[in-house]
Amino acid sequence: MQDQRLLVGIDGGGTKCRARVATMDGEVLGEGQGGPANTRLGLDVAFGSIIAAVDIALASSGLDLDRKKEIHAGLGLAGLSLKRERDMVAAYDHPFASMTVESDAYIACLGAHGRTDGAILILGTGSCGTALLGGVEHTVGGWGFEISDHASGAHIGYQAVRASLLALEGVIPWGGLSSEIMEQLGNSPEKAVPWAETATPGKYGKFAPSVSKWAMEGDPLAIRIMREAGEDAGLLLRALEAKGAECVALIGGVASVIEPWLPADVMHLIVSPAGDSLDGALLLARMHLEGGE
Amino acid sequence: MQDQRLLVGIDGGGTKCRARVATMDGEVLGEGQGGPANTRLGLDVAFGSIIAAVDIALASSGLDLDRKKEIHAGLGLAGLSLKRERDMVAAYDHPFASMTVESDAYIACLGAHGRTDGAILILGTGSCGTALLGGVEHTVGGWGFEISDHASGAHIGYQAVRASLLALEGVIPWGGLSSEIMEQLGNSPEKAVPWAETATPGKYGKFAPSVSKWAMEGDPLAIRIMREAGEDAGLLLRALEAKGAECVALIGGVASVIEPWLPADVMHLIVSPAGDSLDGALLLARMHLEGGE
Repeated sequence: MQDQRLLVGIDGGGTKCRARVATMDGEVLGEGQGGPANTRLGLDVAFGSIIAAVDIALASSGLDLDRKKEIHAGLGLAGLSLKRERDMVAAYDHPFASMTVESDAYIACLGAHGRTDGAILILGTGSCGTALLGGVEHTVGGWGFEISDHASGAHIGYQAVRASLLALEGVIPWGGLSSEIMEQLGNSPEKAVPWAETATPGKYGKFAPSVSKWAMEGDPLAIRIMREAGEDAGLLLRALEAKGAECVALIGGVASVIEPWLPADVMHLIVSPAGDSLDGALLLARMHLEGGE
Repeated sequence: MQDQRLLVGIDGGGTKCRARVATMDGEVLGEGQGGPANTRLGLDVAFGSIIAAVDIALASSGLDLDRKKEIHAGLGLAGLSLKRERDMVAAYDHPFASMTVESDAYIACLGAHGRTDGAILILGTGSCGTALLGGVEHTVGGWGFEISDHASGAHIGYQAVRASLLALEGVIPWGGLSSEIMEQLGNSPEKAVPWAETATPGKYGKFAPSVSKWAMEGDPLAIRIMREAGEDAGLLLRALEAKGAECVALIGGVASVIEPWLPADVMHLIVSPAGDSLDGALLLARMHLEGGE
């Protein structure tokens, strides 16, 4: 007889929350999306976004919203690095039959490798490495733009802006990348300085695709920056390997542009992810149910 | 007959203002110091600091404060990059017989090379290159910590903090420099992240002497950072040479620690400064008087 229990996987990020409803047999029934669900916004805000996303996923599955009370939830949440936050989330009066919560990196890693050991290196606006080895989570990096996030989109863009300003002053050679970046910054230090005074990591990260594009076209400055990002990603990959990870999936918005610049000695680690974060969240819910049976 | 006219040289910086009184023959009579004189604080604040410093210099010279109205002032001011500020300063109702104003970098360069062409590379918390060639000022860099100030104390400290956090996580080898820096940052990313969220360039710059010390002791991470700072300083030196400067004086708090790491091909440019900023400010006043005779 088919197992009729329902699962929902939830990926609660800082800008949006996604939910996927599936059966125990793995059949996906529907998906939904809600607002931000970072726990630092307050748990009522975060769960407001989470429940909205689940309701949309239930409706798109043709299921009654009342079914929430029968559904088993697996949840990956941004901002969950502090134990205090984790305990508060676990104690929250949720509407589900059961709820299991881990970090967003945890469910991404679970999605990428399923039930086998493995690691992910997230290369987006920021960067972070996470390995799941025998059910234990290990992380490297991910401490923010100011003093961490090596090989991230924001850091690639930051290096490009700094170097392009040097190029504008004739300190290093002018080229395609510096021309494109300085044009966007008003072609003058007087305009670039106030831009930088308020620039967020996201604003720097928006330049990362230009750096990658110009590197592929042979621009020496762009090549130097991408090669450095590749070396930095290599350091994080070797650190994950040293912790015991034998395979690492690269995920995030700039993963694909950094991959061609990785050092040769880490390439044997790289694998394609088997599934996405929501697959990982669904697996988290399923494993919790199996563990409780 | 001896020329009895009096000169005062003034170096108005962002944290303090210094004044030196001398005769036309170059005899130094006394010095004084006042509060900040950055024009961005408002001209009344800046001139309050300037006049206080001059009054102390006059008193230490055994001269009546009333002599201000006979004295010819040469002034180097921080924050004078905008023409608007420059015009406002020139129009200010000062108490001197005459006043000539340039940037703080200008008087530093004049102090370093006197009446001959030359350049300076300021390597302090920030960095900036200035050349005076045929009386015309040329600058490179100096656009602030966020996107400029290569080879500065702040940037050296920034690189050291970022790398030390990687070392703490085992991503790169642990060593003397990372040990010293992470001890000051609480030996944990959780403590280093809030530190970085409010760290000023000055706070990063405070780590520069540690980087230099550990590099001299053979710490590989410190050597890598100092070598990179030396390469960056080399780029700025070559840019000053390309503008026509045949000799460059290194000045500022970290100049001496960067000098051993400069690339060999720029060493022929390096000279010792003939005098300091106040010597330059006095020369500025003297040249103005001579030009008016």
